[in-house]
Amino acid sequence: MPATRPWPMNAVRTRSGACAAHRRHQMLTVEQAVQAKAIALGKLSVRATTAAKAGHPTTALSLTHLVTELLYRIMRWDPAHPRAPGSDRLVLSEGHAVPIIYAACADLGVTITPHGNARPMTQDDLMALRDIDSPVDGHPNPEIGFPFFDAATGSLGQGLSVAAGLAAAARLDGIDKTIYCIIGDGESREGQIWEAMDFIADHGLTNVVAIFNCNTLAQSDYVSPAQDWVHLQHKAEAFGWTALAIDGHDPARIDDALRNRASLAKGRPLCIVARTVKGWGVPDLGGMGHHGTPVKQDQLTAALAALDHMAREYGVDSVFPDDVEKLLRITPPPDVPVQPAPVAAPASLGTVAHDNGTIAAALRDKKMMSPRRAFGTALKALGAANPQIVALDADVKNSTYAQDFADAFPDRYFESRIGEQNMVSAAAGLAGGGKIPFVSTFGRFLERAFDQIEMAIIGGADLKLVGTHIGVTLASDGPSQMALADVAFMRAFAHVGDKRGNPAVRVLTPSDGVSAYALVLAMAESSGACYLRAVRGDLPILYPEGEKFPLGGHKVVRQADPAGDGAALVFVASGYMVHSCLKAARILEQDGVRTAVVDAYSLPADVPAILALAGKGGQVVTVEDNYVGGLGSELAEGAGTIPDAPPIHPLTVTRIPKSGRSADDVLHYVGLGVEDIVAAAREYLPAA
Amino acid sequence: MPATRPWPMNAVRTRSGACAAHRRHQMLTVEQAVQAKAIALGKLSVRATTAAKAGHPTTALSLTHLVTELLYRIMRWDPAHPRAPGSDRLVLSEGHAVPIIYAACADLGVTITPHGNARPMTQDDLMALRDIDSPVDGHPNPEIGFPFFDAATGSLGQGLSVAAGLAAAARLDGIDKTIYCIIGDGESREGQIWEAMDFIADHGLTNVVAIFNCNTLAQSDYVSPAQDWVHLQHKAEAFGWTALAIDGHDPARIDDALRNRASLAKGRPLCIVARTVKGWGVPDLGGMGHHGTPVKQDQLTAALAALDHMAREYGVDSVFPDDVEKLLRITPPPDVPVQPAPVAAPASLGTVAHDNGTIAAALRDKKMMSPRRAFGTALKALGAANPQIVALDADVKNSTYAQDFADAFPDRYFESRIGEQNMVSAAAGLAGGGKIPFVSTFGRFLERAFDQIEMAIIGGADLKLVGTHIGVTLASDGPSQMALADVAFMRAFAHVGDKRGNPAVRVLTPSDGVSAYALVLAMAESSGACYLRAVRGDLPILYPEGEKFPLGGHKVVRQADPAGDGAALVFVASGYMVHSCLKAARILEQDGVRTAVVDAYSLPADVPAILALAGKGGQVVTVEDNYVGGLGSELAEGAGTIPDAPPIHPLTVTRIPKSGRSADDVLHYVGLGVEDIVAAAREYLPAA
Repeated sequence: MPATRPWPMNAVRTRSGACAAHRRHQMLTVEQAVQAKAIALGKLSVRATTAAKAGHPTTALSLTHLVTELLYRIMRWDPAHPRAPGSDRLVLSEGHAVPIIYAACADLGVTITPHGNARPMTQDDLMALRDIDSPVDGHPNPEIGFPFFDAATGSLGQGLSVAAGLAAAARLDGIDKTIYCIIGDGESREGQIWEAMDFIADHGLTNVVAIFNCNTLAQSDYVSPAQDWVHLQHKAEAFGWTALAIDGHDPARIDDALRNRASLAKGRPLCIVARTVKGWGVPDLGGMGHHGTPVKQDQLTAALAALDHMAREYGVDSVFPDDVEKLLRITPPPDVPVQPAPVAAPASLGTVAHDNGTIAAALRDKKMMSPRRAFGTALKALGAANPQIVALDADVKNSTYAQDFADAFPDRYFESRIGEQNMVSAAAGLAGGGKIPFVSTFGRFLERAFDQIEMAIIGGADLKLVGTHIGVTLASDGPSQMALADVAFMRAFAHVGDKRGNPAVRVLTPSDGVSAYALVLAMAESSGACYLRAVRGDLPILYPEGEKFPLGGHKVVRQADPAGDGAALVFVASGYMVHSCLKAARILEQDGVRTAVVDAYSLPADVPAILALAGKGGQVVTVEDNYVGGLGSELAEGAGTIPDAPPIHPLTVTRIPKSGRSADDVLHYVGLGVEDIVAAAREYLPAA
Repeated sequence: MPATRPWPMNAVRTRSGACAAHRRHQMLTVEQAVQAKAIALGKLSVRATTAAKAGHPTTALSLTHLVTELLYRIMRWDPAHPRAPGSDRLVLSEGHAVPIIYAACADLGVTITPHGNARPMTQDDLMALRDIDSPVDGHPNPEIGFPFFDAATGSLGQGLSVAAGLAAAARLDGIDKTIYCIIGDGESREGQIWEAMDFIADHGLTNVVAIFNCNTLAQSDYVSPAQDWVHLQHKAEAFGWTALAIDGHDPARIDDALRNRASLAKGRPLCIVARTVKGWGVPDLGGMGHHGTPVKQDQLTAALAALDHMAREYGVDSVFPDDVEKLLRITPPPDVPVQPAPVAAPASLGTVAHDNGTIAAALRDKKMMSPRRAFGTALKALGAANPQIVALDADVKNSTYAQDFADAFPDRYFESRIGEQNMVSAAAGLAGGGKIPFVSTFGRFLERAFDQIEMAIIGGADLKLVGTHIGVTLASDGPSQMALADVAFMRAFAHVGDKRGNPAVRVLTPSDGVSAYALVLAMAESSGACYLRAVRGDLPILYPEGEKFPLGGHKVVRQADPAGDGAALVFVASGYMVHSCLKAARILEQDGVRTAVVDAYSLPADVPAILALAGKGGQVVTVEDNYVGGLGSELAEGAGTIPDAPPIHPLTVTRIPKSGRSADDVLHYVGLGVEDIVAAAREYLPAA
């Protein structure tokens, strides 16, 4: 650590002149050094949250000693290169405790990247906590310029899954590093924590250490007895972990547990249940009513004085900063060889596509193919082309065809069982660890992880999400298995720019096997999160082999009028409904209606180009077998600023579907049979 | 049970004439009767799924004995009145096992309500499983005409929470009944199950009995060791339950455990870990590869013969149906007095509103008030007016102000801790039990329960959802706490009709304390689910006391042109942004732009009426501090079929926000400051 590094002199200073300081100097132990540093960081946390007039100093104070031990003594890392691949990692699942991490990072001059420019963090940065121009955000977020973290946290219960993903990535890369995860006791009520506990035990990820911060206080009440430290220890043991209860403010005990983690764990993942005090060191911040409440400016002096009092009590009020630093030596991480290039060149993926026997056979024989089938084939091809591709599925790999990948690359496949939340956050962790994770399950069940998906997006994880069995054509299984509101949610992110200016999520709905295959490859090549929606049923092949499907594009699968006068009617659809629209167009043709059909497989869509297909007086009908919020909204919203845009008539599912024995039965039930589409279109057409 | 009730004679018939039958007749034990019935129901399940060419016969077969014991021996209920308030209830969390329940219900002639007409279920109904005209849906769903169930299940992991809600409702009503819940072993990976285990233990809901169906096989693989019966037993015990492992195909053992549940449970909730066999009785259906796969028509005879062979093995192949029925007597439920009217009359709620000191004081003093504050006040008023109102919150009651209700009506408040998924499904259970549940947390965290919300909607539960801290004006806490995609998801259901023809969800975003208060009352009065979005910050009071806010309505808070020529510019907004638009309108007024401002507090909105405010050449600008999919989509979609609709320009959040120290900072960051709104509007206005 450089000698010029900023140091909180007001926290650890000599009290009564050189003599006393000299005496302390002689006697300082490692424990005292940790204690001194912990108190200094606690004071910084309090000051920063007071400056921000927001934040959670009491939670931060409960972590003073744990964080000091981790960042200054236990973790092998380098503040100048916080994302060095060989570093131990820390995931702060209870993201609101982040001021204590920021305090340490400011003290250590950790590299931050405000507006993309790397430099060491200063105390001024710390005091700019939560400022609009600061990368020191309210909750951990690497994407905003704080690369110490691998993923965004703050919506509770997700960090342990992220840690699992980071641990899995490290193991794949053969890197011996430890992923520490700090979890709040109240937070441990979230079921996802227990999905993660199972996942980590299932996959033998003993490079994860979970630390439960048991400060007994949640936001609005004391934690339930179910989340007290005794119950948490019993639960962790029942979940197959070794659980160790310690005093979370005793540096020696923390150090012992973390340093000897391998032998203590006895081959299982290790969980430390740390008894802590919320608002440690500041009596006025104890008990209920102090969650998320910074110390007021006029009470700041008293709060800091209370912490100084703790320093006196521990005999560390008059120590030399240099002495503390000498004792708190951070072990640097091991050098790790550079990993292979993360994405194979598009050309090689193109070759993969041409080599693909399944698609080729389908084309040759004019067979039907389900988009999900093509997904599985493409995923396997990607796996062969790029060792960074990993896959996760939630016990439906034989339905999504992620099985193809799982069989071919078992080491890179992470069966997540029926726990979608953990699956998505673990994928975010894998992305943080440099992998390209494909996450598949029924589109309907991805809804269960929408919070986790949003957190992954916030943190900049390029998840490749695949939802199968979309829309009402799933038929037989009924609405509990049909993805119907997935487009509305995911499209919301299609119009949000990520840091690179890409759509935060691209929503892709292929209409046949060829396009599904091509889009899966395109997902892997793109930077940015994508969500592919794959129909369950077999669909006719629409496109020739080798057809390109650029993200953001669409296909005119039926030209209304080659002469160029434009269509009287433009059907815009994706997935299954492209085929319905083609049938409807053929019927309308008999009436002499010039009808175009667009396969709008990608959102955000090129709305002006699609609307330009309509001739003068032309009508646009969007057809979706899901609830509103998808293609119809996309075109209607986009039309607002286009002069003389044609009228847009969205057809969507407007009643809750039920089981039916065929897709046609259910389409008819929801008013989206081919005859319904034709009837609706006729209604919108100007009277002849 | 009536003598004319249909009976599966082909399943339990005499094999070798009267003599043998007579001999069996003499010797039949209760156990044998259960065995005979179980096998008969198993055969019906197999036949029904074969007829449907879909469904999960193997899971159904694993439950034959458990379901027979429950429905024919243990539960106090009346097949003619499956929703009788005094009845014991069964929640089938692993909804795909439903054919075994349907088989029993067909056998017992349980009342079903196809197309709203009540009649006993027949075997023909059973064989119409999954038909589009049948209420015998692919997964349990009361709303489709199968009132035996209280809530829809099928998306896994939710049933135990529903059971908790039903149990809580029963306890509130002073009804001594037991709620049984069957959970799959694979399903028990879902974290929500463990949230429910905690919730039930927390609230001492010992009237719930959880039954884990440990058939060791999930869909794509054997269950993880983490979900084997030994681990499940240990886990349940660690979660504070009494856990009993039994053979799930041994009628005597099942009967003993369920009948003596109170003494066995020792004051804790009781969990039965039942070891079962997937595809019980049919060797060809054993092992992997038979999940969700019905027996093919040409293999049906062999499968049924295998079950007949089991009957012979147990010596129940030649029994008289009458003998079986005599031994399987269903205990009717106790009579329960009619509960108080579920909703107070609107007039009385109006009185409540007028009596409300908090709102009145704010009006008198022209104070600011946050919509969340008004929610808390209104919820407490509702609690006083209507004893059926209950409330749930997830450890943020002091932020959402659900605290007001919790303090006033502690018996009707269910603290759900940091477990949003369980909270929402428990609310669905409370709704199934006749309560009107208000569910509150940050809007952002309701995202975590979108799957559960959708299941509640499918099942017809009128949830009153309240999401606070919406939009970017939350500022300081950053994007992990801001509801930004909530509108897109929830609005998808605003355009889906429920059984009564109401919007499946109404989305309500009040812009001040008066409207927030009124809308909370309106939510309680409405039939149908609602989602109220409440801004965190204080907002100026816009409306006079007593103003009415009909669902589906909007308010013109600024008239552009009293003379009636219509506005050159119409701002349409809700919540916080109404105030920003008013400020923007005042600025534009200085340029002579006739600007109207609409508070579109309710979705679905009356789009034609709103658009009619624009004069000739007028422009409509929607302003939302959330991602696309809300108000802008609503108006743009609705405009398609309106002749000469004005152009609609949606302003939304198009970059991922971050923390800022003030709402203005973050609004400016995302391009939605007042000056940004003015600039955008000027761009859309025709050149002067």
